[in-house]
Amino acid sequence: MTWNHPPARRLLLPRGFRFAGLAAGIKKSGKLDLGLVDIPRGAAAAAVFTSNRVVAAHVEVARDSLRATRGRVRALVVNSGNANCANGRAGRRDCEAVCRALARLLKASAREVFPSSTGVIGIRLPRQKILRALPALVAARRDSAAAARRFARAIMTTDTRPKFAAAPFRCRGGPATLLGIAKGAGMIHPRLAPPAHATMLVYLFTDAAARAQQLQPLLWEAVSRTFNRISVDGDTSTNDTVLLLASGAAGTRLASQADRRRIAQALESICASLARQIVADGEGAGHFVDLEVEGARTEAEAERVARAIANSPLVKTAWAGADPNWGRILSAAGNSGVALDPRRVDIFLGGQQVCRRGAACPFDARRAHRELGQREVSVRVRLGRGRARVRFWTCDLTAEYVRENSDYTT
Amino acid sequence: MTWNHPPARRLLLPRGFRFAGLAAGIKKSGKLDLGLVDIPRGAAAAAVFTSNRVVAAHVEVARDSLRATRGRVRALVVNSGNANCANGRAGRRDCEAVCRALARLLKASAREVFPSSTGVIGIRLPRQKILRALPALVAARRDSAAAARRFARAIMTTDTRPKFAAAPFRCRGGPATLLGIAKGAGMIHPRLAPPAHATMLVYLFTDAAARAQQLQPLLWEAVSRTFNRISVDGDTSTNDTVLLLASGAAGTRLASQADRRRIAQALESICASLARQIVADGEGAGHFVDLEVEGARTEAEAERVARAIANSPLVKTAWAGADPNWGRILSAAGNSGVALDPRRVDIFLGGQQVCRRGAACPFDARRAHRELGQREVSVRVRLGRGRARVRFWTCDLTAEYVRENSDYTT
Repeated sequence: MTWNHPPARRLLLPRGFRFAGLAAGIKKSGKLDLGLVDIPRGAAAAAVFTSNRVVAAHVEVARDSLRATRGRVRALVVNSGNANCANGRAGRRDCEAVCRALARLLKASAREVFPSSTGVIGIRLPRQKILRALPALVAARRDSAAAARRFARAIMTTDTRPKFAAAPFRCRGGPATLLGIAKGAGMIHPRLAPPAHATMLVYLFTDAAARAQQLQPLLWEAVSRTFNRISVDGDTSTNDTVLLLASGAAGTRLASQADRRRIAQALESICASLARQIVADGEGAGHFVDLEVEGARTEAEAERVARAIANSPLVKTAWAGADPNWGRILSAAGNSGVALDPRRVDIFLGGQQVCRRGAACPFDARRAHRELGQREVSVRVRLGRGRARVRFWTCDLTAEYVRENSDYTT
Repeated sequence: MTWNHPPARRLLLPRGFRFAGLAAGIKKSGKLDLGLVDIPRGAAAAAVFTSNRVVAAHVEVARDSLRATRGRVRALVVNSGNANCANGRAGRRDCEAVCRALARLLKASAREVFPSSTGVIGIRLPRQKILRALPALVAARRDSAAAARRFARAIMTTDTRPKFAAAPFRCRGGPATLLGIAKGAGMIHPRLAPPAHATMLVYLFTDAAARAQQLQPLLWEAVSRTFNRISVDGDTSTNDTVLLLASGAAGTRLASQADRRRIAQALESICASLARQIVADGEGAGHFVDLEVEGARTEAEAERVARAIANSPLVKTAWAGADPNWGRILSAAGNSGVALDPRRVDIFLGGQQVCRRGAACPFDARRAHRELGQREVSVRVRLGRGRARVRFWTCDLTAEYVRENSDYTT
């Protein structure tokens, strides 16, 4: 059971976490740009990060600290408006200074502070602005839905809306809750690696108790089937991060295999919801595309074909025009590197088959155009090689995307 | 010595080839859409084709015929407006019917007709229109510059201008000539394979005499350093073809190693000129980008990084806005799959260094913006890993590209 939370609805909050968000002046717009989550002592954490070779200083520090503490996190601090990437040693020093200052305020160690960042690359982090804002940020932290919403807005960049998903699940000792908060609209093509890195930022909070070693495989399993199967523009960020935190404040813990299955299910449904929200809010996106690739020999092969289709500019621009030009989809599949036989490929757009065994089949072009004109579009490709399948979520490429990203303001 | 031939200038024609082009009614616009080159008996040919797993029937037939005749070609017939791809067995039969009919008119065998096509995928070839037009096409063939120009226009699709390059070179027995004619504006990311396949179409004509076995390695060497190092949109076509024909009509032949070097040089300069013209005429392109990647361990590695940069939508949209956002270039390089160390990467935009050892260095942003606003832009990336380097030509991604390709007309 998953709820997508429009800002107006009641937010399901896991116990033990206190949230805050404020405007520290990092963004010139004056919008919220600094977020905090205070995490209770004893909480366990697992994370995956971007596989880009170029990573932000924040990602380096977060990765190192998590390794050093073996998954102990007392606070999450996130700034938007600056990626703190490609700033050399100074970038790392800036990040560490923020972690140290926050640790002092929370009576934690600097290694227990998990830093995240998102924004422009190659500009020094305005460290002083952040340091000055920290005391007010700490003072503002609350375990309220309003505070969680402020946190969610503080981590946004080109997002047009905050992204939440939450679900209850059962484990030993009773009920627990899982809440996910995410941001991401552009530079979205996460390829997270275990132990991993994206500028998609996703934070998952549960109040069940668990050990870090239990969380890591659970997180990886959910991520590889959700966030690693979305693309807005095919560019993998230097800052992508997915962090899972378990506070234990619900008084319930992961004990049995059944508990593990239930939290795994909750995790996958929350991650899927957030992944869909990210794609639906993709920069300039007019259409959300639910792409299914079936009949592959392996899931990896199906994913490779899906990725090639989802990242083809010609396919994406056809989608922008609601154009049932399936030849571009077939051609993109042919470029995936998978040794497919085009004579076995079937393609479906909306409710109709448009390509049978690699060749045109009669279809109602007006109906296809109408169906592709919907906000959510279904595209299905059958390879005829085996039984593996994946679902991949992506969006169209519009003139609005180009305008947004070619606007010379930075 | 290479000349780019604006249509007004005198065209350097190799002897032995007769050209024609007419409007057969394949394009709804009524523009020229069927081209012919009549090739003298005894000519030798070599070709490379797209590496897309999905290939047009025309490409299949051309590849099979060239293999069967071991490089003997008596005629080249090219239609634009229809790719004859994804049409199943019927596509192949349509293509073969055209080859047979042309062969009869020219008293050649059907296997000696080399077919090429470019246009929309998945629509049956209007075979009857082509068959009806063939007698007039054959009757119109001439060894004149005007006829060659008509041929060049007949193979265009979204191109805004025909593309020519020609150079004289010396070989045993005296002077010879090399002429190249190309088309291509979108779906341009040729990855030609030896013996190979792109919808870039390139035809190279020389009047020196050579054996097919001499031509193949010469062609591959030139293609791998030119056409395989360009990208407009990162989509590799189902129809890409580069064909090299040697008529021998100049009475000179490739005999010595020195001859081989001279024709190799002529080939590379012609291919480079045509490759540049294709990118400069890229769909919606506002800027031609001359991208150099240096300091790689191998050429393949440098090419891989160049390709990742050239195909990044965020890099390409920044170029569209003349935005010196070098962080996107660094991030794209980090996603190339090459195990680079960002702390060794230098980036130059126009005449200025903007990134030193993976971090910002002071530069004049207004000057960078001005330089990136030029029609031709220079971008240089140094990896600091070795001595290998490549040059890669690409263009920006504009709202015009999106409009052109999302226009629902097909």
